[in-house]
Amino acid sequence: MEQQTATMTKKREPLNGVDVPALFATIDAVRQQPELAKFQFRVSNRWVNGTNSRSRIESFNGAGGEQSHVRTFEYDADHPQVLTGTDQGPSPVEFLLHALATCLTAGIGNIAAARGIKLTEVESSVTGNIDLRGILGLSNEVRNGYQDIRVEFKIKGDAPPEKLRQLVEQSRARSAVFDIVTNGVPVDITVDAA
Amino acid sequence: MEQQTATMTKKREPLNGVDVPALFATIDAVRQQPELAKFQFRVSNRWVNGTNSRSRIESFNGAGGEQSHVRTFEYDADHPQVLTGTDQGPSPVEFLLHALATCLTAGIGNIAAARGIKLTEVESSVTGNIDLRGILGLSNEVRNGYQDIRVEFKIKGDAPPEKLRQLVEQSRARSAVFDIVTNGVPVDITVDAA
Repeated sequence: MEQQTATMTKKREPLNGVDVPALFATIDAVRQQPELAKFQFRVSNRWVNGTNSRSRIESFNGAGGEQSHVRTFEYDADHPQVLTGTDQGPSPVEFLLHALATCLTAGIGNIAAARGIKLTEVESSVTGNIDLRGILGLSNEVRNGYQDIRVEFKIKGDAPPEKLRQLVEQSRARSAVFDIVTNGVPVDITVDAA
Repeated sequence: MEQQTATMTKKREPLNGVDVPALFATIDAVRQQPELAKFQFRVSNRWVNGTNSRSRIESFNGAGGEQSHVRTFEYDADHPQVLTGTDQGPSPVEFLLHALATCLTAGIGNIAAARGIKLTEVESSVTGNIDLRGILGLSNEVRNGYQDIRVEFKIKGDAPPEKLRQLVEQSRARSAVFDIVTNGVPVDITVDAA
């Protein structure tokens, strides 16, 4: 028990750019008040032209109230030219891969810090295979979305390879986007047309 | 039949910024050569610090070969400060909502043009509700991802409201990201640790 306590104390120091004491304090606060864990994230989008639209991300609700990002973020998406778009931004399916990569990587950063492992490099390559006969309406047997997604991590740090692999595994087990992308979420669409 | 032909001819003109003849030519080409429809999209990501990482989106494979975007796109994602991140970019789950909004909106742009409907406004608000006890490891009964996502469209154009609503419905029925998010996709993760 003495050793365990010492280990825990050692772990609760900022590491990898993660404020570990604040992270554990947040987890403790939510344990005490579970309603703090209820978040609502939001994106507002406006069609620009053709297949190009722009999203604005600025506020969300959580931790007991309304929250604002440090600044307003805006991103264009579009279809590439080979799909008759104007390539004003990545395609929506590429942004989805970005969401997956960044969610898994953020988790690795947090979990490594909590476990006292100093990271020196985390890189990933995410690829998704899709048969566009689905969205082009040429086949009802081909799904619209990706058939499969592959994520390849390269990770380096001051722990044995097995411990580094466990960071990725724990991040996967607690990743919001991995859960959404692998298990699906109900999506309700309403339309105000005029 | 005469009238149908006239209608089809009328429809095959650029509209809403969509090159409709090129769109139909693309669909015809894929119908002749289904292998042109096989695409692979890619994102490479590098951890920066803490929960902040940066993705690069530059090339993809499809239409029979390697393709490059007009330029390389780079995006940061991070956790917000209230979740002990540094807010260098939106959170991964917000980028996922952006992917969903932009996929549905791109589809609306294409389908409206193909149907000869001129759009004047397409706006959407996408919200996702999530209970962070999942990712914080405080409950095994709470899922990691969104419990539900709601998309609210406001659409205006030179067609009756019912026709405008049908555009949204057809886009939903052929949306890659809607399919992925509602039905899920298998994700394979491999790790090179050193």
